[in-house]
Amino acid sequence: MGSVWGNRLKISVFGESHGEGIGVVIDGFAAGFEVDFDYINKFLKRRAPGGRLATDRSESDIPEVLSGIKENFTTGAPICAFIRNTNTRSSDYQDNLINPRPSHADFNAYIKYNGYSDQRGGGHFSGRLTAPLVFAGALCSDYLEKKYGVKIGAHIKRVGEITDDDLDLANIDINLADKLKQSEIPMINSEKAEEAGVYIATLKDMGDSAGTIIECFVLNVPAAIGEHMFSSVESNIASCIFGIPAVKGIEFGRGFDFAKMRGSEANDEFYYDDNGKVKTKTNNNGGILGGMSSGMPIVFSVVLKPTSSIFSEQNTINIKNKTNEKFTVKGRHDPCIGLRAVPVVECVTAIALADLLFGLRYEQ
Amino acid sequence: MGSVWGNRLKISVFGESHGEGIGVVIDGFAAGFEVDFDYINKFLKRRAPGGRLATDRSESDIPEVLSGIKENFTTGAPICAFIRNTNTRSSDYQDNLINPRPSHADFNAYIKYNGYSDQRGGGHFSGRLTAPLVFAGALCSDYLEKKYGVKIGAHIKRVGEITDDDLDLANIDINLADKLKQSEIPMINSEKAEEAGVYIATLKDMGDSAGTIIECFVLNVPAAIGEHMFSSVESNIASCIFGIPAVKGIEFGRGFDFAKMRGSEANDEFYYDDNGKVKTKTNNNGGILGGMSSGMPIVFSVVLKPTSSIFSEQNTINIKNKTNEKFTVKGRHDPCIGLRAVPVVECVTAIALADLLFGLRYEQ
Amino acid sequence: MGSVWGNRLKISVFGESHGEGIGVVIDGFAAGFEVDFDYINKFLKRRAPGGRLATDRSESDIPEVLSGIKENFTTGAPICAFIRNTNTRSSDYQDNLINPRPSHADFNAYIKYNGYSDQRGGGHFSGRLTAPLVFAGALCSDYLEKKYGVKIGAHIKRVGEITDDDLDLANIDINLADKLKQSEIPMINSEKAEEAGVYIATLKDMGDSAGTIIECFVLNVPAAIGEHMFSSVESNIASCIFGIPAVKGIEFGRGFDFAKMRGSEANDEFYYDDNGKVKTKTNNNGGILGGMSSGMPIVFSVVLKPTSSIFSEQNTINIKNKTNEKFTVKGRHDPCIGLRAVPVVECVTAIALADLLFGLRYEQ
Amino acid sequence: MGSVWGNRLKISVFGESHGEGIGVVIDGFAAGFEVDFDYINKFLKRRAPGGRLATDRSESDIPEVLSGIKENFTTGAPICAFIRNTNTRSSDYQDNLINPRPSHADFNAYIKYNGYSDQRGGGHFSGRLTAPLVFAGALCSDYLEKKYGVKIGAHIKRVGEITDDDLDLANIDINLADKLKQSEIPMINSEKAEEAGVYIATLKDMGDSAGTIIECFVLNVPAAIGEHMFSSVESNIASCIFGIPAVKGIEFGRGFDFAKMRGSEANDEFYYDDNGKVKTKTNNNGGILGGMSSGMPIVFSVVLKPTSSIFSEQNTINIKNKTNEKFTVKGRHDPCIGLRAVPVVECVTAIALADLLFGLRYEQ
Repeated sequence: MGSVWGNRLKISVFGESHGEGIGVVIDGFAAGFEVDFDYINKFLKRRAPGGRLATDRSESDIPEVLSGIKENFTTGAPICAFIRNTNTRSSDYQDNLINPRPSHADFNAYIKYNGYSDQRGGGHFSGRLTAPLVFAGALCSDYLEKKYGVKIGAHIKRVGEITDDDLDLANIDINLADKLKQSEIPMINSEKAEEAGVYIATLKDMGDSAGTIIECFVLNVPAAIGEHMFSSVESNIASCIFGIPAVKGIEFGRGFDFAKMRGSEANDEFYYDDNGKVKTKTNNNGGILGGMSSGMPIVFSVVLKPTSSIFSEQNTINIKNKTNEKFTVKGRHDPCIGLRAVPVVECVTAIALADLLFGLRYEQ
Repeated sequence: MGSVWGNRLKISVFGESHGEGIGVVIDGFAAGFEVDFDYINKFLKRRAPGGRLATDRSESDIPEVLSGIKENFTTGAPICAFIRNTNTRSSDYQDNLINPRPSHADFNAYIKYNGYSDQRGGGHFSGRLTAPLVFAGALCSDYLEKKYGVKIGAHIKRVGEITDDDLDLANIDINLADKLKQSEIPMINSEKAEEAGVYIATLKDMGDSAGTIIECFVLNVPAAIGEHMFSSVESNIASCIFGIPAVKGIEFGRGFDFAKMRGSEANDEFYYDDNGKVKTKTNNNGGILGGMSSGMPIVFSVVLKPTSSIFSEQNTINIKNKTNEKFTVKGRHDPCIGLRAVPVVECVTAIALADLLFGLRYEQ
Repeated sequence: MGSVWGNRLKISVFGESHGEGIGVVIDGFAAGFEVDFDYINKFLKRRAPGGRLATDRSESDIPEVLSGIKENFTTGAPICAFIRNTNTRSSDYQDNLINPRPSHADFNAYIKYNGYSDQRGGGHFSGRLTAPLVFAGALCSDYLEKKYGVKIGAHIKRVGEITDDDLDLANIDINLADKLKQSEIPMINSEKAEEAGVYIATLKDMGDSAGTIIECFVLNVPAAIGEHMFSSVESNIASCIFGIPAVKGIEFGRGFDFAKMRGSEANDEFYYDDNGKVKTKTNNNGGILGGMSSGMPIVFSVVLKPTSSIFSEQNTINIKNKTNEKFTVKGRHDPCIGLRAVPVVECVTAIALADLLFGLRYEQ
Repeated sequence: MGSVWGNRLKISVFGESHGEGIGVVIDGFAAGFEVDFDYINKFLKRRAPGGRLATDRSESDIPEVLSGIKENFTTGAPICAFIRNTNTRSSDYQDNLINPRPSHADFNAYIKYNGYSDQRGGGHFSGRLTAPLVFAGALCSDYLEKKYGVKIGAHIKRVGEITDDDLDLANIDINLADKLKQSEIPMINSEKAEEAGVYIATLKDMGDSAGTIIECFVLNVPAAIGEHMFSSVESNIASCIFGIPAVKGIEFGRGFDFAKMRGSEANDEFYYDDNGKVKTKTNNNGGILGGMSSGMPIVFSVVLKPTSSIFSEQNTINIKNKTNEKFTVKGRHDPCIGLRAVPVVECVTAIALADLLFGLRYEQ
């Protein structure tokens, strides 16, 4: 309900963009895991603001661990991590409840919380709330990698009219995940990445913003995780992914392209490979059949709408006066929130899979 | 967890395609609601097999109410509805655990349940399990309509290369929902519907199948339902929609098209209409902002992959002999499962929204 | 929420005393378990009405399995069992919503469900709803016994002024559980059992009823099941046990007697036994420390209030006329519901422990 | 699951006795409630250590609000409160995982968490974790009082052989709750309170400890809150109350005394009082019928075992050497944890009732 998610692994997210800070409680994580803070901080840094293609707000985003980790090892008790806000300029946001920003949560939050919602910088609805998700997810990612060899990667599949090279869904290089993590703009095709950089920089100069598709892949997930119907891998990932602000769609495998395909093209035929492992020749289903992992790469794409905060004049209402007004958004904002969302999508995926893997039956 | 879904309104789905039958328990439904079985049966009939464009399996699908309704009124106690299977031909399916059907759940289920899964006709993974979802959802739909004036409709947006007319997301005719419900192929453009019929009939003759995009719209949802982050309207609908077999993607509003758009095109600007009601000029966000309903039409699209059961020879494995084999699927199957999925999508949407509406705070 | 319980093992109970029947859906049970229907039916028979010390209502209570079991083996899909009502005399109950029976749910249900609750025979609040709990719990009990050697037993600790012999909590004979199951009145001391029989028979003749304390013990539970705080073994068992009608209290180990004790008397000191197994000299804590199983017998007591349906004239209200009235309960009722509750307590305990055991982490 | 509890109102507790601190995230609390920190701090102060009858550990226990409250009003976003630990002496506890303390969680936690559990001062199992429960519960208590006029009170019903005066369950003075909150030893009979003080002081001098029964009452709860079966008021309160360390039993109304009673004595007869309000002449059921509130005072008792940390030499094991050993507990401990548990029981009750009240259906 609300900002709590999960079954075997429960996360509880709290905080506001311009309040004391943001944080997460992680309940159900395995005991005795040595936490690699460097690993986590790399993810946090990739998500953090700053750089020529992002907002000018600069936050160091160093989490303080308040519980659950002792001498770098998880204890089995709930883990709480807190990131204190430092660089806030709330004055930019004071009118959000009077002049709700188009395509933001302001208006709905005003109605829902009778005007008491803290909408400075978006408050609890801010993209800043993804930092605690990254903390929790990076911890899970590291765990899945060390325990199961799971590798999670993601690339920008599309921004504006620029599209990256296609992945071969049935055959993804294990090194691709780490390679992409090192790029400012994580795309397979570096020329396209350069084009994307120019496009985003241009939009930034114009005070405009870009939408994005992020494609995420997960290698080495054991077959047959995921439960019946509503706890399918798809349901589990989707319900958690839609917790990321600005996400407006998710598709698994060939996704919406399935509508153009025939069954005879779409089906993934099984075979034993030379090592006696069951595989499928194609992987149009994105590694998920009947809601369960098939052992093939899990692949899905997520779309993020263009950052809603743009710097041109827009129409909105004045709730106090009940009039229509023109207004211009203040604050510091990303021209393409999708860039910083790449590690967030990876991390949320790690959380969703950890929840399913921790739920594996004792006797399996 | 598994086949149970919901918070305030909990549904628990059970049954198999070729077992005794299929059913659902609905816990948390309001007391004192007069159940309109005609209303429900119309939905069940739209979902039921039969007709020139569907499988030849014919099931009357008449639900028996086992609890929770007395003299046609809901009592507040859990409602159980059960549909007994009648027309099963299990012999068609006996080899599913030995020769797993491509793109079906058979292989994963074999692994997960150590060979004990009932995969006749797909067992608990069968599309047949959507009949109890329709029972539960039609009940919710009727309730939402009578209590809140909510109207849910859906059309086939795409099948193969045939695409229906676009909806104007900000301005949807209240009568469209009912009008679409009366068509064999629910499309806005009747010529396109005819083309689609020909296309599907051709595929049926070829023993092949088609994928589909279904676009669903919901009118008159009060503003500000949906909770923070993981209980957003999007998370709630998505987690329930992915419980429908063959669904591989969901997008809200302009969805994946957002990647091509700029913020200045994508943003939905607020205004007071002549009646003093807050609206947005466009509705690219599909009626959901910050995870909460905005009062504008809720619109989303769902993609279903082509029916996996096709009648041409395919490659698969023989689990017993650990060999690669050719085989041909038996049984009776739909050439375009998406047609019968239209009422299912409507019903699942009703369930997801009822769960959020029932959860509205007492003091709001 | 309501009649759904559990995390890893979810049960969903439905039905009414005088409706079509009663049933349960069990989601999350292991696949490949051979179901021993004789084992289950013995539990159902112990719970069933009939006999000189029980109600005259006679129900065969034979469950029909609607899903999840194929050729006697669990398939991993949700298991639904349904018991059709046969011997109902609803005319006895028609006035429950007008003259609410003292100490029953009638009045509250009337308020909560605006007069639409089905209160014939108590409806969904009836003790009859424990039959599906017994089905689910007997299945779990058999599973726990075969997989872990767990043995669950229970005796009548007190009825009226008659008290059974004390258990030595630290040292319970493994054969006691089965031995007690064979008695009409399950008490350790057979003379006391005879006294209890006379007492209950006398109350039956008088149209009065008796309260009871049932003490339940569980042997061979592995150490360290149960989670932090609210998922302690105590919380888990208690939240499920209070789902049994008429239960008004639960205490673990020495329970309420702890208030009279000093720490120096109450503490259970650890030691290694001759086989190197860690035990405690005493077991005042009833096998649960810090909310987790200690490996010692789990022991707790449950109190059931006297059957509320008695045959003497009582005062109540007339809701329709808003007057105070005298009235006499009709129907057929147990003089001591606690007798038939013994297998129910055992079964609910099995459900609660199965939920915790199924939740054991993969890597433990 | 673990340290997360609730449906409509979710709390997530974290922290350890000797770590950075302890805290709670509260998700689902109403927006726009003015937080009275004085009210909350009075509860925290009553729970805090210090005073002649408690441990010498002194903690100021001032919570820092990290989120969800802005300018003293709740915003509707998750509320996080954190209490930093200041006065810790971990050296006293370093051997808990080698010499597990009798009747504590140490041994089980060692097994469950493979030796990685932080057991200094009991870690996450410490009674100190009740401080965040008090923060959350005091907030709920204030809310319930202001919105519904609900009053929650509690007294020490028994400590050792000293028993307080009986409450008349059907007729409790509205002023009693506040009056009891002002006493060092909250008992109705002040002479008994004095006796209790002497008894506890004597045990403290002896290095021994006392168990306690706390009786809690709640006035002005509207009729018909609580859901079917497993979400009964009893299940809800019990599952939350057993999250308090040292609680070993709970009984509602006459509780275990019901076993001695006949139905004709036990039943609570309905009547209309002079104002036309439905009441019961007696309130043996403690204000709960069929799992729902009846509108009469909710009354229940909770037993806490004697503080497990006593200062005499005890037997335990040495896990490292696998030997039996004598040892003496170090640290600072309460001779009667039950005294400080009184506000905790009140607060947990407020949480459990707020969860049910927030869950009331919109249309009721």
